[in-house]
Amino acid sequence: MTATSKFSSSKVNACDTSLDEFRALFPILPEPHRDYIERAQAHQQDLTKPAGSLGRLEEIAIWLAGWQGRDAPRIEMTRIAIFAGSHGVASAHPVSAFPVEVTAQMVANFHTGGAAINQICKIAESELQIYDMNVETPTADFSTGPAMSEADCVVALAMGMTSASEGLDALAIGEMGIGATTSASALCCALFGGDPEDWCGPGTGVDADGIKLKAHLIAEGLKVNAAALKDPLSCLAAFGGREIAAITGAILAARMARIPVILDGFIVSAAAAVLHKADPTALDHCLIAHNSAEPAHKKLLEHLGKTPLLDFNMRLGEGSGAGLVIPLLRTACAIHNGMATFSGAGVDTKTS
Amino acid sequence: MTATSKFSSSKVNACDTSLDEFRALFPILPEPHRDYIERAQAHQQDLTKPAGSLGRLEEIAIWLAGWQGRDAPRIEMTRIAIFAGSHGVASAHPVSAFPVEVTAQMVANFHTGGAAINQICKIAESELQIYDMNVETPTADFSTGPAMSEADCVVALAMGMTSASEGLDALAIGEMGIGATTSASALCCALFGGDPEDWCGPGTGVDADGIKLKAHLIAEGLKVNAAALKDPLSCLAAFGGREIAAITGAILAARMARIPVILDGFIVSAAAAVLHKADPTALDHCLIAHNSAEPAHKKLLEHLGKTPLLDFNMRLGEGSGAGLVIPLLRTACAIHNGMATFSGAGVDTKTS
Repeated sequence: MTATSKFSSSKVNACDTSLDEFRALFPILPEPHRDYIERAQAHQQDLTKPAGSLGRLEEIAIWLAGWQGRDAPRIEMTRIAIFAGSHGVASAHPVSAFPVEVTAQMVANFHTGGAAINQICKIAESELQIYDMNVETPTADFSTGPAMSEADCVVALAMGMTSASEGLDALAIGEMGIGATTSASALCCALFGGDPEDWCGPGTGVDADGIKLKAHLIAEGLKVNAAALKDPLSCLAAFGGREIAAITGAILAARMARIPVILDGFIVSAAAAVLHKADPTALDHCLIAHNSAEPAHKKLLEHLGKTPLLDFNMRLGEGSGAGLVIPLLRTACAIHNGMATFSGAGVDTKTS
Repeated sequence: MTATSKFSSSKVNACDTSLDEFRALFPILPEPHRDYIERAQAHQQDLTKPAGSLGRLEEIAIWLAGWQGRDAPRIEMTRIAIFAGSHGVASAHPVSAFPVEVTAQMVANFHTGGAAINQICKIAESELQIYDMNVETPTADFSTGPAMSEADCVVALAMGMTSASEGLDALAIGEMGIGATTSASALCCALFGGDPEDWCGPGTGVDADGIKLKAHLIAEGLKVNAAALKDPLSCLAAFGGREIAAITGAILAARMARIPVILDGFIVSAAAAVLHKADPTALDHCLIAHNSAEPAHKKLLEHLGKTPLLDFNMRLGEGSGAGLVIPLLRTACAIHNGMATFSGAGVDTKTS
């Protein structure tokens, strides 16, 4: 296993599919392999350690065995997929501490290897794939109408689905997009309700006035997009950036292929929330890498019923948390597959 | 950098040094290199990410730069040191869910590569070194008198000090010893006071009666060792196992050599607490890898003023948490050393 980083850009084109074709997948989401889960649980009991003493590492190994359908779960072929998109709301309003040009500049930075995720990827020994979701053309401003047409959203979902390639042991998902935190906050508010301000935070570093502006724009957006609120995928079209829709598609496709998914921070979790809202079990194949410093992430994770692996006060995005935890998952597999059993090692078991 | 695992056993012998020679080190503990810390802080501000957006990873890189005295901190040469010892209190009383023979059996398991730490070590690409602190001869039962004589404790401290070898980028510390949780609980109670029961937990898996027994033995031990309570190193001799004293020595020697230390769980933290009690800054060169499932660990970390990196509900010991976080520290270094700067990458900085 050597460190590899592969890059490719993909531009999106229009097509005729409707959101109903994605909705049709919800009733047929595959379950994990129960037989592999049961065997993995039994195997963990036989390893030379007190039962349960490796806590979350045991849970991860069993979870991977179930979704991968392998007695020896593995984290060898992993992809860190970063979806990048431009947000009309950020072109029209000062909702970010950085200019919108930074999205394309950071995509270039990913390609030349200068970003944090490039270094994270090296240590994680993972493939890195960048998906340019038409960065040069922002979505519409959600505060005045839907960010995307249904056709636009469909293309983004389909594009994201291509990232869940057969043969991956896990798919780690990140994003890049100036203004994406505002879209994610709007999407969460649309999906779960509540006061827009409760879903807004500093993002890349805006001040209290910036946070108030975000909340105001979201309130406006909820009014003009009221018709979308009845359906999760319609909410996604109304408020999501293209990269957010692509992430929703990636998570859905990974589920169809039973590929375990590592979700990054607030924005990626908001994209995942669309599926959770449609079916509360739709994220059973997903781990949350870390609790983002963006305050609304914690609130969102409570809605999703997920406990993140790390709490490192990170708020960079670009898959940084998702990539960071890959070695932890790899360690969980090594322990599951490589440890001695009580009988094999001549170690006495519990006396009581 | 390839995965290596080296093993060696070392038996201890008596000598004439007194605990005063260790006490004499407390006033001369070296500080981190302030100039390297300042340069590392400035460098982090120039990397292509919002300032502070990598949270704990930034702090780790700056902390490593300061202790290592390097502009490019690194995690290449690491040692996971496991100290193993046998506890008289466990030979005399049923304080563990496992028989005392398991200590020696697990040391053998470490050597043949069958334990969890062997697998963790592989993924962490770390050296593994086992220190047999005279496992075949238990310490005395602390509930009836001091666990170790001063001479015994001195030898164990000195033996532990040898693990902090020059050239290490970090020293990760773990332990193995049936009954060690009981000794650690007693030591914490001796150092910080409070009700013995508040410092007692299930360890490897004893029930409520077992926890009551531990608390009773600690109360007895505090009575018979009352004279030791005035001094942290005397507490260590009275309640510690040999492996616990060796860990205290290892942490102290690492500080003298400015080697960053990764502490594992409750027992290792209890050994560290001896130094903290002597000087509250004595653990500035230490990170806590994880919050152990042993309930008293959280209480102890509050006394030490430390926030653990992980909270994985682990309670295995043998350095499992300490080894697990090595890739996270390595990632922090890769980011610090390998990322592009704003000016170099042509990425715009913050607008406000």
